[in-house]
Amino acid sequence: VTLRGLDLDDIVERALGGQRRAVGQLLSVAERGGAQADRLTATLHGRSAGAHIVGITGPPGSGKSTLVGRLAAAAAASGANPAVLAVDPSSPLTGGAILGDRIRIDRTGGDVFVRSIATRGHAGGLAVAVPGAIRVLDATGFDPIIVETVGVGQVEVDIAAMADTTVVVANPGTGDAVQANKAGLLEIADIFVVNKADLPDAEALRLDLERMLDLSHMTGHEAYRGRRAPIVLTESLSGTGIDELWAEIIDHRTLLDASDARRLRQLLRLRAEVEALVAGRIHQLTHAAFDSPAGERILADLASGRIDPVAAAEIVLDEGTAFRDA
Amino acid sequence: VTLRGLDLDDIVERALGGQRRAVGQLLSVAERGGAQADRLTATLHGRSAGAHIVGITGPPGSGKSTLVGRLAAAAAASGANPAVLAVDPSSPLTGGAILGDRIRIDRTGGDVFVRSIATRGHAGGLAVAVPGAIRVLDATGFDPIIVETVGVGQVEVDIAAMADTTVVVANPGTGDAVQANKAGLLEIADIFVVNKADLPDAEALRLDLERMLDLSHMTGHEAYRGRRAPIVLTESLSGTGIDELWAEIIDHRTLLDASDARRLRQLLRLRAEVEALVAGRIHQLTHAAFDSPAGERILADLASGRIDPVAAAEIVLDEGTAFRDA
Repeated sequence: VTLRGLDLDDIVERALGGQRRAVGQLLSVAERGGAQADRLTATLHGRSAGAHIVGITGPPGSGKSTLVGRLAAAAAASGANPAVLAVDPSSPLTGGAILGDRIRIDRTGGDVFVRSIATRGHAGGLAVAVPGAIRVLDATGFDPIIVETVGVGQVEVDIAAMADTTVVVANPGTGDAVQANKAGLLEIADIFVVNKADLPDAEALRLDLERMLDLSHMTGHEAYRGRRAPIVLTESLSGTGIDELWAEIIDHRTLLDASDARRLRQLLRLRAEVEALVAGRIHQLTHAAFDSPAGERILADLASGRIDPVAAAEIVLDEGTAFRDA
Repeated sequence: VTLRGLDLDDIVERALGGQRRAVGQLLSVAERGGAQADRLTATLHGRSAGAHIVGITGPPGSGKSTLVGRLAAAAAASGANPAVLAVDPSSPLTGGAILGDRIRIDRTGGDVFVRSIATRGHAGGLAVAVPGAIRVLDATGFDPIIVETVGVGQVEVDIAAMADTTVVVANPGTGDAVQANKAGLLEIADIFVVNKADLPDAEALRLDLERMLDLSHMTGHEAYRGRRAPIVLTESLSGTGIDELWAEIIDHRTLLDASDARRLRQLLRLRAEVEALVAGRIHQLTHAAFDSPAGERILADLASGRIDPVAAAEIVLDEGTAFRDA
């Protein structure tokens, strides 16, 4: 199996040997999806070193990127070998063409490996591409793997929820606490960060978050409903609070490791990945089905009112095996 | 078939006869999903009156709700019978429990029917619930149907893209133009609104949007790449610009009707709905599969590294028919 003239096994070998350029090439394979990505998954599964996955999410403009950079540096300073995966759900109709090259920045310098991934054109979308990219980084010795997402939509929440430890960033004076609540971020947060803590409303935001925690009784992953998420105040520009945040992340990891929880999270991630692979495959099959003569007949019958959408879905499901063999 | 002791056919009859309370009950059925919703779809499909679907999206805090209220009033004043469907993608893990009753507000008064829907617990999610709700409003004589979404995530973009005419709202001084661009809203916008046009940066935002339109050459639905989306300046509080916005919406509808475009949009909506129904069904089946003894074996093999996620997905796909018959 070749990758634009290069042998995938050879690249895997070099990536496992520590060559960062090869790691970047494997991340590109995971990002693009398809048969190569599937083969990569088969090759690397079982080589997981059990890296700690840290998800960081929050609204755009919250200073998240600077915070993540600082956090990765703190991790590196403590002797860890961190990688940052910045996930950018791309434009849905043009495949993010307008953003162009901005969505794919490699900053492979110093002690931190930083990589942005987009997922346009990936059949399984983020739900397949992100686990694939994590698998590459995990197998090649990075730990922790910090997954940063942009935005506060459902997709971002889903990505953050893949992590072992989920950090939700909010900003003073923005209504972020209410937005985080609405977006469902409150329930997935293991740790809250009030960034730009030098702003006058920082304390008010902290109190808002505390109040929401009082009301909800259910932050963090399902296994730790009893634990109350700590709130860390940071200033990512000056670096204030970053060490405390890193310490809280380590604390949470220790807590997870003390129980069966991290193994359980890994299993849930695998299950979610398989479900996404199945969904992606079915989506392709359904899409292809509608472009076949049989599919065009179904659409014509729908348009004329002869059959309704539920009946059409039943037909597609019934003929699924036939479509698949085609 | 009964709905909490009431006969679904009876409610349909009363809703078609113009009883708004019955319309609300049918919307609840569509919102909940499941077998009742499927039956409702089968009953109402073919009764579409071809209402004009207007999607309105934009970031939270953009004054969208006030704008939509004003717009609906303008539509009613012009002799139309508008309905507003406010779609709130709910919290993913707790099903939006924290928001409680706020997510379901019926304001059935005056000349405008306004309804919020959430979709927690709906197997097919928004992609099934929203077409279902639109079908109810269409069949019961509402036209236009204004679908308002909260937020700027992928889900919101997908919902807005279901419309015949998509309106994207931005606010001066917020970086909304850049956000709209990133979120892919630029490509789906048939009409832009600069709301709060009395703010000092309104003209700057308009110029930003014009510049982005210059660069993109591809706003609006795929069939109208040649058309340049107009930018309307509004003040939803005072009502300035609302009549102009309504006129632009009518203009766009006329443009669609002059070609085959609206029928094509309807067909694409039906196709997307069927695909979402299939995806929802497969998701249920996959989920159920993992809770079976066979599924638990797959998970154990995954955890031990005996099989990889792609192989597991293949097994699930191969045994799909068996799972289904179970």
